[in-house]
Amino acid sequence: MSLDPKRTVAELKELRALTADENGAQRVAWTDTWLDARGWFQDKIKGLPVEHHYDAAGNSWTTLPGASQKTLILGGHLDSVPNGGWLDGSLGVTTSLEILRRFAEEFAGRPPVTVRVVDWADEEGARFGRSLLGSSAFAGTSTIAADRGRTDKNGIRLEDAVARCGFPMDRFPEAASERKNAAAYLELHIEQGPVLERMQLPLGVVLGTKGVERHAITFFGQEAHSGSTPMNARHDALAAAAKLALEIRAIAGKHQDAVCTMGSVKTFPGIVTAVVGRCETTLDQRDLDPQVLATMYREAQEASRRFATEEKCTVEWSRIWNIEPIAFHPALLGFCDEAVREVAGAAHRLPSGPLHDAAEVARAGIPAVMMFVQSLRGISHNKIEDTKEEHLEMAVQAMDRLASKSTNWILGAPPA
Amino acid sequence: MSLDPKRTVAELKELRALTADENGAQRVAWTDTWLDARGWFQDKIKGLPVEHHYDAAGNSWTTLPGASQKTLILGGHLDSVPNGGWLDGSLGVTTSLEILRRFAEEFAGRPPVTVRVVDWADEEGARFGRSLLGSSAFAGTSTIAADRGRTDKNGIRLEDAVARCGFPMDRFPEAASERKNAAAYLELHIEQGPVLERMQLPLGVVLGTKGVERHAITFFGQEAHSGSTPMNARHDALAAAAKLALEIRAIAGKHQDAVCTMGSVKTFPGIVTAVVGRCETTLDQRDLDPQVLATMYREAQEASRRFATEEKCTVEWSRIWNIEPIAFHPALLGFCDEAVREVAGAAHRLPSGPLHDAAEVARAGIPAVMMFVQSLRGISHNKIEDTKEEHLEMAVQAMDRLASKSTNWILGAPPA
Repeated sequence: MSLDPKRTVAELKELRALTADENGAQRVAWTDTWLDARGWFQDKIKGLPVEHHYDAAGNSWTTLPGASQKTLILGGHLDSVPNGGWLDGSLGVTTSLEILRRFAEEFAGRPPVTVRVVDWADEEGARFGRSLLGSSAFAGTSTIAADRGRTDKNGIRLEDAVARCGFPMDRFPEAASERKNAAAYLELHIEQGPVLERMQLPLGVVLGTKGVERHAITFFGQEAHSGSTPMNARHDALAAAAKLALEIRAIAGKHQDAVCTMGSVKTFPGIVTAVVGRCETTLDQRDLDPQVLATMYREAQEASRRFATEEKCTVEWSRIWNIEPIAFHPALLGFCDEAVREVAGAAHRLPSGPLHDAAEVARAGIPAVMMFVQSLRGISHNKIEDTKEEHLEMAVQAMDRLASKSTNWILGAPPA
Repeated sequence: MSLDPKRTVAELKELRALTADENGAQRVAWTDTWLDARGWFQDKIKGLPVEHHYDAAGNSWTTLPGASQKTLILGGHLDSVPNGGWLDGSLGVTTSLEILRRFAEEFAGRPPVTVRVVDWADEEGARFGRSLLGSSAFAGTSTIAADRGRTDKNGIRLEDAVARCGFPMDRFPEAASERKNAAAYLELHIEQGPVLERMQLPLGVVLGTKGVERHAITFFGQEAHSGSTPMNARHDALAAAAKLALEIRAIAGKHQDAVCTMGSVKTFPGIVTAVVGRCETTLDQRDLDPQVLATMYREAQEASRRFATEEKCTVEWSRIWNIEPIAFHPALLGFCDEAVREVAGAAHRLPSGPLHDAAEVARAGIPAVMMFVQSLRGISHNKIEDTKEEHLEMAVQAMDRLASKSTNWILGAPPA
C-alpha cells in the first residue's frame, strides 16, 4: 500500500503557501489564484496513468481507467471563500488524489473499477452568490438563465468571469455527460461545526445535507418619537421581531438536529430617538427531515403573525431560497460507518448543515456519501480554520478504506 | 382685544407656502430656507413698536418695552427638521407674535411688563446633531468646544455654517446677556405624541421635560455557521439583544409616564447564513422623575448583563448622552392649568418626552412653563404632522390668557 496520508497534509500546506495570504486562503473561483491552484493540481497528476480534462462547466476530471467502466468518483473543491481556511474543499481534492495514487499503484495502473477525481468548480459561490455552480451543471439542476447576470462587487457578470476561464455558460448543460457510468461518489470534508470536537471524535459519517428554508421576514409598525409616544401607544416592529428571534429557538429545540437562525436584523429609521417603524429580518431553517423542516417553517410563520398582532404590527414573508433535504445512500453510509470505526474506533452519524457538492451528485441519482473530519472550535470560512494533523491523516486512511469498500460494492462483490 | 387666532393659522400657512416643498417643511437651521423664514418674521413685525436684534448665538429677539423692565418672554423656533411639519416650533413663534401684537395694542405700545418674543436658533439640531443650540447659549450651558467641529452630511462644519449666518461661535457665550430681567418664559408647542388626542383634549399643561439616559449597548457573541452550529453551541448576540428589547418594556411599565426605546439594532456579520456574532443596539430611557430614571437605567444594565450571561455573550455599555429631568415652575404650571381650563373646559398635566428650548430656559433658573396642543395621530417630524385649526385657535387664546396671568404674577399682583 502506497497510501501516504502525511503527503496529503504536506500537499495541503504546499497549496496554502501558494494560494493564501496573511488573511487566509484566496482561491475564489474564477480568479487567477484559483487558476493557480488548479494548475498546481495538474502538476501533481503528472506521471500518473490518468486522463485529465475540464468539463463544460469548469469541473476538473482526472480519470484512471479501470477494468470496469463502472466509475467510483472521489471529489472536493479547490475554490475557497475570500479569507478562507486551508482545508475547506481542498482536503477533499488532495485526499482524493492520494487515493487515486494508491489505486494506480496497487493495481499497476488498472484498478477493477474506473476511478475519477473531480475538483468541482465554484462550490462556494463566494463571488457571485451562487454556490454549487459546477456540480449543479453536472447534476442537470443548473439555473443558467437566473445565474448568468449575477454580478460581483465590481459589477463583473458571472457569465463573463466564467467565459474568461474558457467556459461559456450556454454550454454548461454538456457537463451532464460526465455522469456516464458513475456508480458511487465519495467526499471528505471538514465538519465546519463543533459536534465532533464536542464528542471528542475525529471522524463522522454524514447522513445527508439538511434541507433549507430561507426567508426574509419584515415587520411593519409605526415609526414614532421615542420621547412622546407612551409605551402602550406603540406599534414597535422591533418588539415583534425580537419575539420571533427568541421563538425560533423553541421551534428548533423540539427536534434533534434542527437549526433556526435569525442572521440579520435591520431597523428603520434605525435612530436612537425613534420607535422602530419597520424591521427587516432573515430566517434560515434547516433539518434533514422534510417533515420537520415543513413543520418548523409553518410554526415560524404562525408565530410571526401572532407576534405581529400582539404588537399591533403586520408581517410579510418572502422566500429567499430553499432546497429539500438530501439523504445519502444507505449502503454507502454503512461502508462509511465501517471505515470510520476501523480507523478511529468509534463513529457518529450526523447531518450536514452546510450544503456540499455531494448533495447535487445525490440529486442526480448517483449513490453518494460524505465523511466529516473534526474542525477545531467548529470554525470555518476563516483563516483560523484548522484540524489536527493526526485527524487529517486518519481521515485519509478512512476515506481510502471507504473507497475500497465502495469498489467492491460497485462490482457486486461482498465487502472486504 | 385685538387677539386674532385665525391670523396665527393664516400666518402658519403663509410660512408653510414659503418654506415647505412637497416633502414638508425645509427650514433647517443655518440654511437659506431658514433665513427666508426669519426674514418673513422680520417683515411681520414691521410697524410694531418693537426693537429687534439677533443675539450672539443667533437667537432672534423682538422686544416690546414695558413700564417695568421685568420681562415676560414668549418663544418658539422657526427651524425644522428636513421634511418636517408645518407646526413644530413655528406655532410657538407665530402665537408669541400674536400675543405681542395684543400687548402692543391693548396697552398702546407700553404694557406693564416688557414683553419679548424669541425665535431660538437651531432647536432641532437636525443638520449637525446638536439640538437646543441657541437656547443653551442663552442658558450658559453651551458646549462650544465639543460642537464646533460637528459636520453635516456634506462635511461642512457647524462652526462654519453658523459663521456664514453672522454668528462666530467664540462669541456664543455673550447670548447669556439676554437673560437680564427675564421673569418668566412661556412656550406653546404641538404635543408630538398621542396622549391628548387619546384623551380627546385639545390642550395640555406640560409638567417639564423628561430626563434622558441614552446609551449604545453592544452584545458580543460568536459568529458561527447557521447550518453547522447546533442550537446549544451558539453564542447568539442577537438573542441577548432581543431579550433586552422586550425587557425594557417591563422596566418602563412599572412607572406612569416612563418610556424606554430600542431604536436601532445592527447585526454583524448580518448575513442570512451566520449566527450573529456582534449586535449593536441603542437604548433611550426617559422620565420626569430623576429617581425613576436612575432606577430604569440600573435595571436595564442588570438585565443586559443577565441576558448576556444566559446567551454566553458579553455586553458593553457606552453613554451617548444624558440630561436630567427639568420640572417647570409650580406657579406657572398653575396659571397654565387655569388658562387651559378657561379655554378648553378641561386640562391634563403631562410630561414632555421630547426636549424643548424651555428646558434650557428653566435650567438657567428662569421660571418657565409650556403648553401643548393636540397632535393628530401623534405624528411629528413628518409632512403629515397636523393639528385641527380649531385647536390651534384655542391654543392661541389659552396662551394669551397664560401671558396675562404671568404678567400679573411678575408684577406681584393677584391673578386676574
